[in-house]
Amino acid sequence: MRAYTRRVNYYETDKMGVVHHSNYIRYFEEARTSFMEQVGYDYPRLEAEGIVSPVTAVSCTYKTPLRYGDTATVQVYLTGMTRVRCAFSYRVLDGQGKLAATGNSQHCFLDGAGRPVNIQRENPEFYNTFSGELEPEPK
Amino acid sequence: MRAYTRRVNYYETDKMGVVHHSNYIRYFEEARTSFMEQVGYDYPRLEAEGIVSPVTAVSCTYKTPLRYGDTATVQVYLTGMTRVRCAFSYRVLDGQGKLAATGNSQHCFLDGAGRPVNIQRENPEFYNTFSGELEPEPK
Amino acid sequence: MRAYTRRVNYYETDKMGVVHHSNYIRYFEEARTSFMEQVGYDYPRLEAEGIVSPVTAVSCTYKTPLRYGDTATVQVYLTGMTRVRCAFSYRVLDGQGKLAATGNSQHCFLDGAGRPVNIQRENPEFYNTFSGELEPEPK
Amino acid sequence: MRAYTRRVNYYETDKMGVVHHSNYIRYFEEARTSFMEQVGYDYPRLEAEGIVSPVTAVSCTYKTPLRYGDTATVQVYLTGMTRVRCAFSYRVLDGQGKLAATGNSQHCFLDGAGRPVNIQRENPEFYNTFSGELEPEPK
Repeated sequence: MRAYTRRVNYYETDKMGVVHHSNYIRYFEEARTSFMEQVGYDYPRLEAEGIVSPVTAVSCTYKTPLRYGDTATVQVYLTGMTRVRCAFSYRVLDGQGKLAATGNSQHCFLDGAGRPVNIQRENPEFYNTFSGELEPEPK
Repeated sequence: MRAYTRRVNYYETDKMGVVHHSNYIRYFEEARTSFMEQVGYDYPRLEAEGIVSPVTAVSCTYKTPLRYGDTATVQVYLTGMTRVRCAFSYRVLDGQGKLAATGNSQHCFLDGAGRPVNIQRENPEFYNTFSGELEPEPK
Repeated sequence: MRAYTRRVNYYETDKMGVVHHSNYIRYFEEARTSFMEQVGYDYPRLEAEGIVSPVTAVSCTYKTPLRYGDTATVQVYLTGMTRVRCAFSYRVLDGQGKLAATGNSQHCFLDGAGRPVNIQRENPEFYNTFSGELEPEPK
Repeated sequence: MRAYTRRVNYYETDKMGVVHHSNYIRYFEEARTSFMEQVGYDYPRLEAEGIVSPVTAVSCTYKTPLRYGDTATVQVYLTGMTRVRCAFSYRVLDGQGKLAATGNSQHCFLDGAGRPVNIQRENPEFYNTFSGELEPEPK
């Protein structure tokens, strides 16, 4: 899995001069989008098939601030996959490869009416694709 | 029409130490929400009736920066209303009443399928409510 | 401590039709700002005295989505205070009082050069003010 | 000048299912960052030399919505450059090359104390670099 790299945007900084902490949660989402494209089952396709996968929990621990002019590289790991949930872990690196943050997120699967679905039964191709990408929690 | 007042949030500032210019566009939207509640026809109701009113153009001129710890007061004026469009103007004041920005926005009316609608015919109550609030462009 | 209430903004929703999960992290920050005003030691004052208090960790668990047209009420609890760190917990309720999310955050104290400070020694008034507000973790 | 292309992010959409209009203002800023890198005088360098260049006015006209799963390509043109101001115009295209929006922005130059500066005198290299990139307003 290729890490996801993007620029730090000016509008993502705050008056402390660094990227506002809430934006890392957004970087995680961008990295999941990249992950899903790389495994060949992108999120727009999942949505088009009537499934959404909302975030049920998220956490982030901040190590070193990111600044405008820098890049953020997000390493993303699928660390959990069951019939009803999945989980990702993240490591965010700055442009020098220094660890900026770590985090994780949990997700469920819902149908168009907002009801939980058994994704293994509803969408076995998706389930199998994700299951093949499971990795241990990064250290 | 009562002006809309809200705090400046920390996450709205940027590394220049002031509110990022893009957020004023969001303050305008908050002020429109307040306007619609005050005239008795709120936007969630319009949406529930199958109409959306996207922004077709927006502009903002910046005078004095807003800072964290300050409030932003947005005076909002409905300056145009036709069967297919409406327009708002805005004056943003800081906590001392100093002019921070001015702006305006234009909007159309679409049905659920994204087709333009004649709002006077589709929703005369809304049309009449808005028409009764027309004001000249603020100076 | 009075809970902090605010509207859900249209621009905070995403294509799922609900408030994007990253925005809860911003609601937490707004609630901290309100907390500090209520205890009589607001964050702009702390900054003016040369101290910043960045977030070192944050987490959020999502229960029920918030929607445009709704309000978000954030109950905020100072659950930890040492010479070098503090911690908050949050409960977010929708307009009907239903639990929308829970979360917590951890913070350190830095001087203008970005060095950790012993806040009890550097700013005993602040330390004592916060220490007097300590509460057990909400259930 | 190479156009700036980036993904549309999920968190940039709103409940209408399209990119929220305020985010185009942010895309413009990203495109300016790219422009400055391409001309060899990036914004972090300008800031490091003690100059900031805030937005004094911005406008955007929306043509076709951008959606998650799509890309946004921003063509950026420096359309004005004087000793105290500059101006940019923008054309935003979706992934199929269809015009999504047009816009423009105006900027001044301030020193570290927030005073307007004559950039030709203060920073002739920057002034000359930018002046060499002037283009007519795009049609």
